[in-house]
Amino acid sequence: MATILKSIPREAGVTKIEYEGPRIALYTNSPRFLMENNNIISNLVNVIKKRIIVRTDESIRKPENDALRILREHMPPDAKLGGAFFDTATGEVSLEVKRPWLLQRNVKEFDHTEITEKIGWGLRVRKATTNPSSTIREISYNLKVSSNERGKQLRQIGDEIFRPRLAQRTEVSLLTLGGFGQVGRSCMLLSTQESKVLIDCGVNPGAQNPVDSFPRLDWINTTLDDLDAVVVGHAHLDHTGFLPVLCKYGYKGPIYCTEPTLPMMNLIQLDAIKVASAQGKTPMYAERDVRQIMRQAITLPYGSVTDISPDIKLVLANAGHILGSALCHFHIGNGVHNFVYSGDIKFAKSILFEAANSKFPRVETLLIESTYGAKEDIQPSRQEVESTFINAVNKTLHDGGKVLIPIPAVGRAQEIMMVIDKYMKQGQIIEAPVFTEGMISEASAIHEAHPEYLAWELRQKILETDDNPFDSQYFTNVEHPDAREEALREDSPGIILATSGMLEGGPVLEYFRNVAPDKANKILFVSYQVNGTMGRRVLDGARQISLLGREGKVEAVNINCGIEKLDGFSGHSDYNQLMSFVQKLRPKLKRVLVNHGERRKSENLALNIRRMFKVPAHYPQIQEAIKLF
Amino acid sequence: MATILKSIPREAGVTKIEYEGPRIALYTNSPRFLMENNNIISNLVNVIKKRIIVRTDESIRKPENDALRILREHMPPDAKLGGAFFDTATGEVSLEVKRPWLLQRNVKEFDHTEITEKIGWGLRVRKATTNPSSTIREISYNLKVSSNERGKQLRQIGDEIFRPRLAQRTEVSLLTLGGFGQVGRSCMLLSTQESKVLIDCGVNPGAQNPVDSFPRLDWINTTLDDLDAVVVGHAHLDHTGFLPVLCKYGYKGPIYCTEPTLPMMNLIQLDAIKVASAQGKTPMYAERDVRQIMRQAITLPYGSVTDISPDIKLVLANAGHILGSALCHFHIGNGVHNFVYSGDIKFAKSILFEAANSKFPRVETLLIESTYGAKEDIQPSRQEVESTFINAVNKTLHDGGKVLIPIPAVGRAQEIMMVIDKYMKQGQIIEAPVFTEGMISEASAIHEAHPEYLAWELRQKILETDDNPFDSQYFTNVEHPDAREEALREDSPGIILATSGMLEGGPVLEYFRNVAPDKANKILFVSYQVNGTMGRRVLDGARQISLLGREGKVEAVNINCGIEKLDGFSGHSDYNQLMSFVQKLRPKLKRVLVNHGERRKSENLALNIRRMFKVPAHYPQIQEAIKLF
Repeated sequence: MATILKSIPREAGVTKIEYEGPRIALYTNSPRFLMENNNIISNLVNVIKKRIIVRTDESIRKPENDALRILREHMPPDAKLGGAFFDTATGEVSLEVKRPWLLQRNVKEFDHTEITEKIGWGLRVRKATTNPSSTIREISYNLKVSSNERGKQLRQIGDEIFRPRLAQRTEVSLLTLGGFGQVGRSCMLLSTQESKVLIDCGVNPGAQNPVDSFPRLDWINTTLDDLDAVVVGHAHLDHTGFLPVLCKYGYKGPIYCTEPTLPMMNLIQLDAIKVASAQGKTPMYAERDVRQIMRQAITLPYGSVTDISPDIKLVLANAGHILGSALCHFHIGNGVHNFVYSGDIKFAKSILFEAANSKFPRVETLLIESTYGAKEDIQPSRQEVESTFINAVNKTLHDGGKVLIPIPAVGRAQEIMMVIDKYMKQGQIIEAPVFTEGMISEASAIHEAHPEYLAWELRQKILETDDNPFDSQYFTNVEHPDAREEALREDSPGIILATSGMLEGGPVLEYFRNVAPDKANKILFVSYQVNGTMGRRVLDGARQISLLGREGKVEAVNINCGIEKLDGFSGHSDYNQLMSFVQKLRPKLKRVLVNHGERRKSENLALNIRRMFKVPAHYPQIQEAIKLF
Repeated sequence: MATILKSIPREAGVTKIEYEGPRIALYTNSPRFLMENNNIISNLVNVIKKRIIVRTDESIRKPENDALRILREHMPPDAKLGGAFFDTATGEVSLEVKRPWLLQRNVKEFDHTEITEKIGWGLRVRKATTNPSSTIREISYNLKVSSNERGKQLRQIGDEIFRPRLAQRTEVSLLTLGGFGQVGRSCMLLSTQESKVLIDCGVNPGAQNPVDSFPRLDWINTTLDDLDAVVVGHAHLDHTGFLPVLCKYGYKGPIYCTEPTLPMMNLIQLDAIKVASAQGKTPMYAERDVRQIMRQAITLPYGSVTDISPDIKLVLANAGHILGSALCHFHIGNGVHNFVYSGDIKFAKSILFEAANSKFPRVETLLIESTYGAKEDIQPSRQEVESTFINAVNKTLHDGGKVLIPIPAVGRAQEIMMVIDKYMKQGQIIEAPVFTEGMISEASAIHEAHPEYLAWELRQKILETDDNPFDSQYFTNVEHPDAREEALREDSPGIILATSGMLEGGPVLEYFRNVAPDKANKILFVSYQVNGTMGRRVLDGARQISLLGREGKVEAVNINCGIEKLDGFSGHSDYNQLMSFVQKLRPKLKRVLVNHGERRKSENLALNIRRMFKVPAHYPQIQEAIKLF
């Protein structure tokens, strides 16, 4: 604090310096000075090696209505303001606009510095989505109502992160709690003498009993209060499904993830409650626990170096897997050890995302997934799979059938939508209505709201043009179960995208019971089917499946329709892509650990990394501790 | 208890059935019946799968003086009673006699059943040693004064061992706390859902600072109350040196080891206090903590299957390393996993011990030491090393010099004494006085008191003849520091065996300062020199060593004498013996872990086990957890 006060001139009007979680917030009552002299802040960051953010002092913030009026006066009407969210905890206003390019920092007519000076709030411009995202709204609401409490918590988190280190030397262990030798319930504890950081906290959807379903937190003799942080790589249930339970049982600390990962995981976590109830199971947690996650989350952009404990810095980097998915780079003990956890990665460009980032200044230990770690797990090229997809869809549509694509709402659904939109527009797919269920549309809205996390071309389209594929005319969102009748109307070809992706529940089952018995139809899997799920059974050739009917009776569904699986759309790297990723990092690596794959696949990947790259490589099991340093 | 009561006839006179630690004690007021019908007990053991011991009821036990009088009346005077110890906790009297063969069970004149009936105490016949062992006396005394408290504790231990199991399935982890990738501070935690068993608890004599000296118990988040048991493989400090600290800080549970391991480790632990004080260091623990170990120890014979927790059975087996040293076989969760920890093993016969046992009904995981795990660690044959020893000793004696053999009091000292005795008697070593320091003689007495743990020929000699090599005329025990003058008298050749074996303290330093400067003398190392010890420095060629003199001044000692190292006397297996041992177990093994060796040696042994036997083999580091099942 002394250094900061010394370096900042009186004109900056600094009124308060406070921790805001892992950052330092400088409050000012004359924001123009620091906004115009931002080299002062960047010099300071270089000296104190902590992130600094400038906040407006509460005293200068205009009441929300007044501020909004002033904002409207300065905004070109073409920008189309959809909503404004004033975050009282940070003094920032988020403007949701249809045409964000009209409000960018470099637009003369909309001078951020001037407006901030006038309204006393920081500015943030966001893309207003075609359909509003109720999840993002809910998060904003929760941030608002908890802003006092959050402010306090963020100060406390800062105190804990920046306390002096206690131990003289650094020791680093990784404790495996889930997702080793298996896909599902990804979870591990990164432990040093100073800190304990939980990485991922998922469930195993295919497991039969509790001890196989949830992370083995029982095994580590650690209370939730002992955790310094939870870091979440991406939103899927097998990485985040147990997090609400952690909050339910009293975890109060920070949850780090990228900005889009927060609404994405909340969406999925809330949906899991519904799925469980629909299956007659008692959900493990309630909505309030998910709301708690919203309040405890600290979102980080890709590439920013953030202290998350006295001896651990975290950098999140694009993993190419789903929206906001991140490789997690842990820089431990002043750099004595660098640990990179891949999470689920796609080391190839897709329509939605850039290929996973592979540029890390240092990586001593890499932990890499192995969903497709077997040598035979080679996916066709993007071009091939798209043409196979076109043929598969066209054939069924041509015969008047329906194509049912069971799909995880988050990720693959949007990728497939982009593909369909592109090829229907080009005339290569027969034009037909495309139905999506409510949750897919919500997930799409979250994608649209975070264009900075999308592939470059798509981001440009959304941020700088009116040609926004999420706004395509082909798509019909099934808002209400009754509307399914339209999608299921007889003799009317169409494409249906419905969740869940492994036939484990959700609206897809309703479509499944109608689509499966008819030879003319087709079920098209485009994502990985975990062992033990119904999707896997159908894919493995089951000719009849028992479902719980609407009235709670068991109902046998005959499967006569075509079953097809397309691999290239997977959000996961295939074997070759995994190996290429390791090769990129090879010169830096001292050790590779392999997780997140069936045992045989992890084993094979480890073996081949050892053989080809001469790097020690292992595939730990669950309930192991590995000394990293 | 119902089963026992049902199976035992009224004539047995059973008065009480109680847990006595891992066993069930049956108290009887008419011992003859069960002694004559011992098939009743063995049938019962087969049914209830628990060990049963028969104890005399307190009501029939004659007062000690009366009992002793009766015993003397029945005993042939040639047996030469040295002492009798009445253990009130167990109702057993131990008779120490010079000629135990005269009192064996099959000797008609000394009918155990009749005598037990007369005195009301169980009988145990032990060899009375040439010099009485003060350590064994001290243990007896401690057992006596704590017998009430011990009885209570043993019942409680039984309650805990035989409580119903809580978890449905068995999971087994091994947590490494010391002695992995290093020699020293051997320690690990065997952990299931039911139990936590600490195996070994040593210190690292060569380490510079506390975090490297002691087991990393801080790392496991477990309190001492959580431990179900401590199992000790053998007595050396690197396996037992931290155990008194465990008791000091409140460990109250059972400590399992073989009968001779208890006095051996107590001797060493008490000596370590003296060594620390002599070096001006504060000892980590006091004598009372070692006495506590005496009270908490439960000794087991080789080969007996003993429940030590609700889901773990332990069998100790001869390891051939030092007196009482044991391989520990853990039979876990009704046999779902069998884990054998080699401890330090010698897989070859020596004068003192049989080769390590390699017959185990099942072993899924073997943890093996690797002190000599490098391919070049091949020891000369026993014959070669003995002849080299003879030559080395004779050459110096012939030149009128002294041979100083720095030696661990426990183990190697007795082996070397047996060799010297044998070859002096045969005239192959020049006759000369052999001096040993107090602690060696004490350790020798403990050997003599436990002939059942010695090699077959030696055991027979001690148990059945008067030709007892421990009673040899060549040996002079230096009872008091002043007596060293005799051993150090100028121009008088001789052999000196003194502790410690790595020149880290003890009387050897006194001899060292006198012996080292003179060219005519020789220092002969016959045991492993741990990295960082003074012994290692001398062996590595140091020509001058700084010692703390008697008056607390630092004194430089020049080393001009000959330095020689003989490997074949090591209590450790060489590389070939380690590999042969693994090969013996090969058909049963699923995995081999390697510990207790410098990293390079562990690595090499693991690599070659993998290559030659095609068994997965790893060499974990400290602070790792390995899932065994």
